[in-house]
Amino acid sequence: MKATYKDVKSDILSKITKGEWAPGSLVPNEVDLAATYGCARATVNRAMRELADDGLIERRRKAGTRVRMTPIRQARFDIPIVRAEIEEKGAEYRYSLVSSSIEPAPDWLRARLKLSDKSKVLRLVCMHYADGDPYQHEDRWINLTSLPQAQTVDFSDVGPNEWLVSTIPFSDVEISFSAGLADKRLTDYLTCAIGDPVFTIERSTWWEGQSVTYVRLTYKPGHRLTTRY
Amino acid sequence: MKATYKDVKSDILSKITKGEWAPGSLVPNEVDLAATYGCARATVNRAMRELADDGLIERRRKAGTRVRMTPIRQARFDIPIVRAEIEEKGAEYRYSLVSSSIEPAPDWLRARLKLSDKSKVLRLVCMHYADGDPYQHEDRWINLTSLPQAQTVDFSDVGPNEWLVSTIPFSDVEISFSAGLADKRLTDYLTCAIGDPVFTIERSTWWEGQSVTYVRLTYKPGHRLTTRY
Repeated sequence: MKATYKDVKSDILSKITKGEWAPGSLVPNEVDLAATYGCARATVNRAMRELADDGLIERRRKAGTRVRMTPIRQARFDIPIVRAEIEEKGAEYRYSLVSSSIEPAPDWLRARLKLSDKSKVLRLVCMHYADGDPYQHEDRWINLTSLPQAQTVDFSDVGPNEWLVSTIPFSDVEISFSAGLADKRLTDYLTCAIGDPVFTIERSTWWEGQSVTYVRLTYKPGHRLTTRY
Repeated sequence: MKATYKDVKSDILSKITKGEWAPGSLVPNEVDLAATYGCARATVNRAMRELADDGLIERRRKAGTRVRMTPIRQARFDIPIVRAEIEEKGAEYRYSLVSSSIEPAPDWLRARLKLSDKSKVLRLVCMHYADGDPYQHEDRWINLTSLPQAQTVDFSDVGPNEWLVSTIPFSDVEISFSAGLADKRLTDYLTCAIGDPVFTIERSTWWEGQSVTYVRLTYKPGHRLTTRY
């Protein structure tokens, strides 16, 4: 039977992990590898592409393919819609719109999203509950220049994230994780104490070069974002 | 000129984002698409694989390929070696080993890593500095059953992460992000105040089914982990 790309990948992987192919060393070319494994060059190519994606080898057009000196550890996080996140835990999801207003973009937001002087934004404050307990506080700004139709949406039933995901299926995203402290305003929503540590996700989204939205998601104290890979 | 996989991908992408291919709808099969685009089936296959990786389509062996109802937003984070992270900011990296000891594994660690009663661990406490300022506190446990050679390594010059990355190039990892508060012990290392919010990464690593190491990395207050995709 012909070698599959998985056979090739796992054989090369073991050569790397056992040190047979040393960090920094040049990897044989795909034609030679295809001859060695008795398979098509496309099969070798697919194995190499996955090894590159896994951070084990580095492919450079002119310098050739080498074993990485220090493999990159890449973590992939699914950023689920909060409804799915809560329902996956077996809890009942409840959404509530706290406030909705159209405002001139504040200076810090104009700077962050490179908005013009006169940009107006739709600001939405929402809460997400799991089995009735506060789970996530959402503070969201939507750029009405790039997404004017947001003005006509009733966000009292559908959260802005769900609406945005179905409206803008593909976009550039900048995401930051950080630790903060609950202030007076947050303690009311999250039923926690002032000074409790809170995990925060900030996300800015662009669509075809235009900024669309900025959101700050603050989780109840004790929240952990976990992934396995 | 023949359509490249990028041409095919971007054309399909625009069909999805413009709603021409509706969420949940069946995607034409690859043979038909190859005929439409006048390219090889492998070209279509590669485009489809990337669209699946991007979370836009869902490929199921029997049910066929469909446009996803709600695209998954997947964030990829590079978890760099702290030295590279600091040097990329243009700062000078300094590493310091605070303490090193061989101990019986504490109960919470035995539970977390499924270690046997008599497991011994190498515990290393380290600090990482950027231009002389505290940057990251590392509290690390290494399972000596699976990695006995760790006992013979001198960690006063090389940090355990760098050593582990070059020793175990590929492994299963569980990683958690959370927010915590600096306690008395951490304030001394990170020169911050008790109760300052700190961003924490915890990582457990397995290699061929055996637990290898658990580490808790605590960053100086104000640290943000950011990625763009």
